Amino acid sequence: MHAEIGNPDGGKSIYAVIMAGGKGTRFWPRSRERMPKHLLDIVGTRTIIQETLARLSPLIPPDRTLVVTGASHAEELMRQLPEVPPDNILIEPMGRNTAPCIGLAALAVNRRSPGAVMAVLPADHLIRDEARFLHVLAAAVRVADREAALVTIGIAPTGPETGYGYLENGEPAGTVTGETVYRVRSIREKPDRPQAESFLRQGNFSWNSGMFVWQAPVILDHIARHLPDIYRALREIDVAWGTPRESDVLRDAYAAMTPISIDYGIMEKARDVLLIKGDFGWSDVGSWDALWEVSPRDAAGNAVRSGAHFVGVEARNSFVFSPKKLVALVDVEDLIVVETEDALLICRRGASQDVKKVVNLLAEGPGRAYL
Amino acid sequence: MHAEIGNPDGGKSIYAVIMAGGKGTRFWPRSRERMPKHLLDIVGTRTIIQETLARLSPLIPPDRTLVVTGASHAEELMRQLPEVPPDNILIEPMGRNTAPCIGLAALAVNRRSPGAVMAVLPADHLIRDEARFLHVLAAAVRVADREAALVTIGIAPTGPETGYGYLENGEPAGTVTGETVYRVRSIREKPDRPQAESFLRQGNFSWNSGMFVWQAPVILDHIARHLPDIYRALREIDVAWGTPRESDVLRDAYAAMTPISIDYGIMEKARDVLLIKGDFGWSDVGSWDALWEVSPRDAAGNAVRSGAHFVGVEARNSFVFSPKKLVALVDVEDLIVVETEDALLICRRGASQDVKKVVNLLAEGPGRAYL
Repeated sequence: MHAEIGNPDGGKSIYAVIMAGGKGTRFWPRSRERMPKHLLDIVGTRTIIQETLARLSPLIPPDRTLVVTGASHAEELMRQLPEVPPDNILIEPMGRNTAPCIGLAALAVNRRSPGAVMAVLPADHLIRDEARFLHVLAAAVRVADREAALVTIGIAPTGPETGYGYLENGEPAGTVTGETVYRVRSIREKPDRPQAESFLRQGNFSWNSGMFVWQAPVILDHIARHLPDIYRALREIDVAWGTPRESDVLRDAYAAMTPISIDYGIMEKARDVLLIKGDFGWSDVGSWDALWEVSPRDAAGNAVRSGAHFVGVEARNSFVFSPKKLVALVDVEDLIVVETEDALLICRRGASQDVKKVVNLLAEGPGRAYL
Repeated sequence: MHAEIGNPDGGKSIYAVIMAGGKGTRFWPRSRERMPKHLLDIVGTRTIIQETLARLSPLIPPDRTLVVTGASHAEELMRQLPEVPPDNILIEPMGRNTAPCIGLAALAVNRRSPGAVMAVLPADHLIRDEARFLHVLAAAVRVADREAALVTIGIAPTGPETGYGYLENGEPAGTVTGETVYRVRSIREKPDRPQAESFLRQGNFSWNSGMFVWQAPVILDHIARHLPDIYRALREIDVAWGTPRESDVLRDAYAAMTPISIDYGIMEKARDVLLIKGDFGWSDVGSWDALWEVSPRDAAGNAVRSGAHFVGVEARNSFVFSPKKLVALVDVEDLIVVETEDALLICRRGASQDVKKVVNLLAEGPGRAYL
């Protein structure tokens, strides 16, 4: 299969851009300001970004993979991804949401290989079926290689989630290597519950996975048209790139940019948005609850990662992470238990969105050392 | 008040005997085979046995306090009780329940001061009102000093507990320093629930606190009559005491003794059992649940001992012990959370009797290091 998808017929270079800008509050106390989710091994023995890189590599090798991250995570990221050349790590001077991040990456790709196709991928998602993923991504690359379109990968919704954007597709526009390509009719950011339920009933809505494929000049054109201020800042950066002024200009240009997501800034306004549906076991593992859902569980429903022993007495449907200690649960259920060197979280399963309340309380008070 | 009670009029010496033979499974993971409950600071800054000694000292000083313990705990016990002369630590070669333990202590007391009164006290109970306790104990000492009786201290039951023995009292037999002395009509070991409820309705039942006061020769006489085999073993020990054969004889004699409690072996059979009721805020703190009950709690009902910060978000009625880590509870209630160097217990409040199931599972399997 790799032979089929590894070399799309357009002949343009293909780059991957991994967006690694996560702040990491939702997996506190494991994720910290200096150690966001994608740098953690929360789902396996490799970290999430290591999984992301490895998953891509049959289609796009590490030397054509760029990673965009913040200064405080760059060193750890380089340590975790030795296969990625240091020059491929793009360091944003500050977070400005995804539109500036993708614009910066598009500049970098275009300088390396003018007109190249770039696949934009979040650093911190989980994908169970890697072969299916590669097949879908290769199809999206092939479409983007041929057409000056914005190609999105949508996920079949498994429930009326209100935390995701939704892509509404029209009729099929064609087929590429067996994958149906749809034209996107509308993009709906984070709906309320009745809306989300209505989307599911209608059947032609996908979750926006945040994975996009396009030619670098195509997205830069869209930025120029829809986000002219950001485009101007990107032009300044492009001019200074490789000169002694580079880091000063980057910092000033970033400071001047309005933070905006690629979804609000571009996708909702653009025509020529295409969609391929991805059925590869996707999860954004956005919370401890989501991690329990995707984790292997024992007969009692417990997902346990303990460095020592685990003893459950009438213990059910709980998530346990404790790298060194014996953990005993007695007559409890639906708990999330996470122990680190300096902190212990115990949260009701289903309430893990409230972990950010803990983080907020710590930020206000004398608990900054735990962020 | 101390002047009144400090020197009962009988003139006999008074000794305290602290029974420190606990095995410590109910406070796992804090209590361990080598560190039973009475050696832990679970209720304050001092350990429970340190509290016990300090509480007694206005009435009976440490140099007239004997402590009976096992070999594996003796060193730590001496470290915790430097005021107690090492000669006052009696080391049982093995546990044989309370009758042999009390018999051994009675020998020791009688050798030091023939005919002395001894107050037998468990090492691991909690008493809130120390002044009341001393007053009641002094009254019991005064009664035992005058009469060749077995004097017990009973606790007014606060519920139909099935884990305690009950003392049924008859009519008052007199008054000593304001305390009413009752004759005990019967002793009922650990009743079932309907029996316990019936005891409470009848109103003339007290919990057996395990605190006894008597003259050393009186209890030895009772042992001779009701437990002749144990008496014979004690005689052998007495003869060998202070000779090179002492430790061999002690070991062999103990090995030969039938394990039996003073309650089953003596108290249930004896006449002349008297009772003084103790209303001094007693608890045997026999479980994590009991410890939550007696612990200071915040407005949300949480009893927290954390070395770092505690953050509760919708967290209620829980017990937390974590000496070094920040602990965050999110949307949980009625939990017992206990973290030690090598283990983490999370138990539903109300189920802490099942902690011993964890200990049993560890004993069967590869978890012996955690016992």
